[in-house]
Amino acid sequence: MQQDRFSAVGSNTKRQDAIEKVTGHAKYTGDLALPGLLEGKVLRSAFPHALIESLDTHKAEALHGVVAVLTRDDLKDIDPYYGHCLRDRPLIAIDRVRYIGEPVAVVAAENRETAEEALSLIDVRYKDLPCLASVEDALAEGAPLLHENVAGVGEFHEMGGVGDQKKSNVCHHEHFAKGSPDKGFEEADEIIEETYEFPMIYHYTMEPHTTVAKYTQESITLWTSSAHPFLVRAEIAHMFGLPHSKVEVVVPYVGGAFGGKSYFKIEPMVVAMARKTAGRPVRVAQSVAESMLTIRRHSAKCRIKTGVTHDGSVIARQAEVVMDTGAYADNGPRVAKRAANRIHGPYKIKHCKIDVVAVYTNTVPAGSMRSIGGPQTIWPLESHMDSIAERLGIDPLEFRLKNFLRSGEELRAGAKAMDADLAVGLKEAAACIGWGDIERAPGRGLGIAVGVTDSEAMPVSVALVRLLADGSVMVMAGSTEVGQGTRTILSQIAAEELDVPVERVTMQGTNTSSTPFDRSTGASRSTTVMGNAVKAAAEDLRQQIIDAAAEVLRVDQNNIELKEGEVICGDKRLGYGKIVALFFGMPGGELIGRGYIRPGGGMGTQLPVFWETGMGGVDLNVDTETGSVKLNKYVSVADVGKAINPAQCEGQDEGAAIQGLGHTMFEALSYENGQLLNPNLIDYRVPSITDLPVVFESKLVENRDGPGPYGAKGMGESGIVSIAPAIGNAIAQATGVRIRELPLTPERVWRALKNAKRG
Amino acid sequence: MQQDRFSAVGSNTKRQDAIEKVTGHAKYTGDLALPGLLEGKVLRSAFPHALIESLDTHKAEALHGVVAVLTRDDLKDIDPYYGHCLRDRPLIAIDRVRYIGEPVAVVAAENRETAEEALSLIDVRYKDLPCLASVEDALAEGAPLLHENVAGVGEFHEMGGVGDQKKSNVCHHEHFAKGSPDKGFEEADEIIEETYEFPMIYHYTMEPHTTVAKYTQESITLWTSSAHPFLVRAEIAHMFGLPHSKVEVVVPYVGGAFGGKSYFKIEPMVVAMARKTAGRPVRVAQSVAESMLTIRRHSAKCRIKTGVTHDGSVIARQAEVVMDTGAYADNGPRVAKRAANRIHGPYKIKHCKIDVVAVYTNTVPAGSMRSIGGPQTIWPLESHMDSIAERLGIDPLEFRLKNFLRSGEELRAGAKAMDADLAVGLKEAAACIGWGDIERAPGRGLGIAVGVTDSEAMPVSVALVRLLADGSVMVMAGSTEVGQGTRTILSQIAAEELDVPVERVTMQGTNTSSTPFDRSTGASRSTTVMGNAVKAAAEDLRQQIIDAAAEVLRVDQNNIELKEGEVICGDKRLGYGKIVALFFGMPGGELIGRGYIRPGGGMGTQLPVFWETGMGGVDLNVDTETGSVKLNKYVSVADVGKAINPAQCEGQDEGAAIQGLGHTMFEALSYENGQLLNPNLIDYRVPSITDLPVVFESKLVENRDGPGPYGAKGMGESGIVSIAPAIGNAIAQATGVRIRELPLTPERVWRALKNAKRG
Repeated sequence: MQQDRFSAVGSNTKRQDAIEKVTGHAKYTGDLALPGLLEGKVLRSAFPHALIESLDTHKAEALHGVVAVLTRDDLKDIDPYYGHCLRDRPLIAIDRVRYIGEPVAVVAAENRETAEEALSLIDVRYKDLPCLASVEDALAEGAPLLHENVAGVGEFHEMGGVGDQKKSNVCHHEHFAKGSPDKGFEEADEIIEETYEFPMIYHYTMEPHTTVAKYTQESITLWTSSAHPFLVRAEIAHMFGLPHSKVEVVVPYVGGAFGGKSYFKIEPMVVAMARKTAGRPVRVAQSVAESMLTIRRHSAKCRIKTGVTHDGSVIARQAEVVMDTGAYADNGPRVAKRAANRIHGPYKIKHCKIDVVAVYTNTVPAGSMRSIGGPQTIWPLESHMDSIAERLGIDPLEFRLKNFLRSGEELRAGAKAMDADLAVGLKEAAACIGWGDIERAPGRGLGIAVGVTDSEAMPVSVALVRLLADGSVMVMAGSTEVGQGTRTILSQIAAEELDVPVERVTMQGTNTSSTPFDRSTGASRSTTVMGNAVKAAAEDLRQQIIDAAAEVLRVDQNNIELKEGEVICGDKRLGYGKIVALFFGMPGGELIGRGYIRPGGGMGTQLPVFWETGMGGVDLNVDTETGSVKLNKYVSVADVGKAINPAQCEGQDEGAAIQGLGHTMFEALSYENGQLLNPNLIDYRVPSITDLPVVFESKLVENRDGPGPYGAKGMGESGIVSIAPAIGNAIAQATGVRIRELPLTPERVWRALKNAKRG
Repeated sequence: MQQDRFSAVGSNTKRQDAIEKVTGHAKYTGDLALPGLLEGKVLRSAFPHALIESLDTHKAEALHGVVAVLTRDDLKDIDPYYGHCLRDRPLIAIDRVRYIGEPVAVVAAENRETAEEALSLIDVRYKDLPCLASVEDALAEGAPLLHENVAGVGEFHEMGGVGDQKKSNVCHHEHFAKGSPDKGFEEADEIIEETYEFPMIYHYTMEPHTTVAKYTQESITLWTSSAHPFLVRAEIAHMFGLPHSKVEVVVPYVGGAFGGKSYFKIEPMVVAMARKTAGRPVRVAQSVAESMLTIRRHSAKCRIKTGVTHDGSVIARQAEVVMDTGAYADNGPRVAKRAANRIHGPYKIKHCKIDVVAVYTNTVPAGSMRSIGGPQTIWPLESHMDSIAERLGIDPLEFRLKNFLRSGEELRAGAKAMDADLAVGLKEAAACIGWGDIERAPGRGLGIAVGVTDSEAMPVSVALVRLLADGSVMVMAGSTEVGQGTRTILSQIAAEELDVPVERVTMQGTNTSSTPFDRSTGASRSTTVMGNAVKAAAEDLRQQIIDAAAEVLRVDQNNIELKEGEVICGDKRLGYGKIVALFFGMPGGELIGRGYIRPGGGMGTQLPVFWETGMGGVDLNVDTETGSVKLNKYVSVADVGKAINPAQCEGQDEGAAIQGLGHTMFEALSYENGQLLNPNLIDYRVPSITDLPVVFESKLVENRDGPGPYGAKGMGESGIVSIAPAIGNAIAQATGVRIRELPLTPERVWRALKNAKRG
């Protein structure tokens, strides 16, 4: 039902977490104090690939203040392997280590200093193995296998498939073809082929990974900086042999996630440590450097080849993407799966053949990061689109508009058809930077790019909305507040459905023992999927208010109207709380609305739940003497369907674009023989306020065409994908030089210009 | 629907809290550690009645380690008065103090020692006022008024009535009459009149009152040893001007309540203290001595007069009960209300006139205690019944059986008719002690007594029952675990309805932010009222499992059977968890059942919800030389309707009887001019294991006639009421001497025997 007037939805409601956060009162996992809390510190492998020959913890255990040391010897009565795609990772190294930084032992001590001192007393003897420092090494003939029996150990259990069966270092191979690619290329007038590279990136959440665990005979409680608490619950329950109901996962505020806190990171290790400390809780609060050794984004090398006709129609595409997934699978298989659709792009292509492989190497495991597999593929794709347009002599905007999938057309069989009007957004982005209008000048360039991704969102969420006897409303939903503002958004949705002032609605943090199930916070799904669950719960509650009012006022339901928190019936006006009190016969009681969202249950059966859609446009100058790039203007366009809270949408979209500016201009984890060379924020530079474009805008497209509440759809990730190709395209326009590797540091740009002159 | 086979219900399931409690791992409010937690200590009035002329806290505030001092000066922007019957009590003394022990100031300091030292630095100047040390003083002509404008300040807000309007020290006057009492006494063949006294009693919970409060700009969190968390939430919200949704009340395990943790005790004071400490949480953990200055049971003086005919029919009764309610109303009005029905007793009486007054005095406030107003009235009533039987020369058992209200007959108009077969229980109690069979011997006596009380239980409870994707079940219900085993009972009910092993069901502690509303834990209501809410929620969930199974298996609902945690459909058997996973399309999701209980909504509209029914029988010997009494056998009979967990029922019934043995034989708070003389466990002696009767039995009557699940009804309080009159009756039988005052210490018995000889 299309609703035309909104009270709460569409307004820039104050964030629920605003005051707590700006006053410094907001509590994160690391702020938790518990009686007897121990500090856990992790001994990490200094070898990229080695057998553990011996491990002696006696001296460490004897140190005054050390309570226990966790090693591989403590895992014998549990299943120590975990992973949501493949259970290929032990919670602590068992027979061998596979990357520098891999946990080998954990010390739990009365304080951090003692724990750190104890680490130096642990004697580990390694036997070096060949280091697979790169995907090339890992794929080389005769390379040792990093996971000899991974197909046996794990199965791609949540996704229903299985890992690559062939004994190799390929963790996952995603293949997707349609039409007759060979024939397509034969029919093409032009074939353009390029190779692009995307670096390893670190999420840099302000709060590094932190987990507190308490283990008693009968239950486990975890406080953790996690975006997937319900999946953590299930995995911990599985590993330690408890029912889900006995594993409580509490998520306070999370200081940023960006995919780096998806699924399970240090939780299994911390629980195992807590299992050994006789009921005393243990905290592992990592440093930034340690979190850089915990998870990263996949680097990728992408060969892309496109066949086009003279009139500018794309008819065939082939792409091969090789991603470095590091030492353990983590979300590698899913990243590869998504990358396959993303390298295809939102274009009508009859023939295509795409192969994506995620390859194990002796580096930090790679997993989800904002728009999984997106930047790695859209950087090459959208750069490549400009290269094709240039070859054909067609305006890049016109070229894209010509080839766009229209709303209702499908990218691949079985997937949900395109659900957005891409032309609207791209024209908006182009117009904002003066595409076609701005005077050309030496060193100045404009660039555009499109980012369309099939959201990974699983449509499984449950919510409760409670109406208390004073008329206040509580939303119980498992979306974690990772800084994206979900508590505010979900409260706005409940307020809208119930027609109460949004200030009257509260949403608290997640505790799996009381908050209903939610698949996860990520994949831009919370507003859309959980939003629908909250909306359904609020609708259920709304009907209960009407039923209760009809009963207590002894009138027909049709005579009852709900408005601004009051039941209106003739000339009677009673607050909702009063209805609750009358219904229960005392100033107490409560009504509870319930909402279930699941595939086929209100959100369609096809995936993705929605296509996440954004565009970027940039106006920049390149200093050809130094290679430095100055952004005159950047505009990010996000197709949000309906902005529940426009200011928050803009904030997220801007944040995504700036995070993308990081991998575009500055960021790359630098490895040498398995050794990360820059695990700190000095050598690994993220964008700062001085790096912002002179003019920086976020534009929202609101066509009410999303599957979320009021036509909303997921956003907050699209902004990260377009910026690199938009800037690359603008540099190419400004200089005539196409750069195919990131980040676009002054040195890289300068060298490219110099090489081009030479060439 | 009567169900004839039970799996979980009726079994002696292991208590959910057993292991945690016997291993010492169970956490209570006082075990809580929070970052920056401050210790609060209370400065208490040393005067029973005085004006506070001045209050100087400068020296205390200057002490190193003191963070803040709370006084009356901090209350100006809030409503400092609280109380659930009458808002007559300030959270800390304002203009005057009304009892020795009343809080005058609270110090919050870095540690307890500093807080205690600071107390001695607070300079308070009092102006003495006349002490109303007893109800006689308080009711005397010209006595000063303890609460001059109580009718104006408070209203009997939850009960709908108002306090006594007349300016006097009567806090509440309950009057109940039926028939024509004067005519009734005229028609009587014999009129027996007696006066009894019941002492002031302390609850002695192992855990004294403890509260931790945290106050931020936008919300309040309380951890408190409370049996009424939802009422605490509402009162705190009212006082401090926040919506219910912003006040979170968490109740860990409670180390005994017995009514002493009903409604609000130290919570408002601790919240006000926390409001002054700039966001740092404050703990007030009282000592036993302090809790003895916090709440007690009403003492009572009771004149009872009964008119009977020669054939043993009771035809008229008049009673006047004067209760000492102490300095503030607390639950005094309700205690008086209940006492009025309880002094009537479960007998057919045509004419009666009952007056109960609760009178303010300068003593510790009196409130709820196990069977409110019960022991104070049933001690005189059931002693009096034996006196009448003796006068008439009728066997006391026969006399009671003749006059009992039969099931379906009403005690008073408008109240629910008697719902128990009293004769069954009393005959059982008599038979167990060999009534009529045992040989009489000098100094040996048998005694019986009946305790029937109209439960105070308000039928308002909401529950959720959650089925997780691994088939485990969580009960979310606001009944607090005060040691009575409610988590186990409610889990058994859910297990029964869902047909799952009870081990698969978990219930956690109460947190008002996530646990649905419950009126309170008390009045023997949890099994009956919350039990019905949990049953309704489980039934709702059961239907959802069937619906989901029908959908995912594509069969008709009628082909589905639920058995032992599995869905059975033809030859298919799938665990409930598997159905959830199929329903949501992933190994996640959950189904949530919902149950509302309210007056008229499944539990009838008349109060009491049930008549709580018990009997006691005793066989004892009196040593006439020393006055000491030896209990050869005590049998307590509890009519439980249906025992959900027989072992727990017996445990509760035995506990109640032994607690009653305390006021029968040992306990009395001793006051002199407003000064409590024995505020410690040396001088205030509670029963110990050596005081147990030689043979001690609890018998359960199970007629399935209760309004709770499976015919259950409330129990756990009845055991406390019969023991005093049963023992008094047996002493009278053994010695021929009727003692009308408790406790029956050797000295009192010896003096009574000596006086009787003289007389």
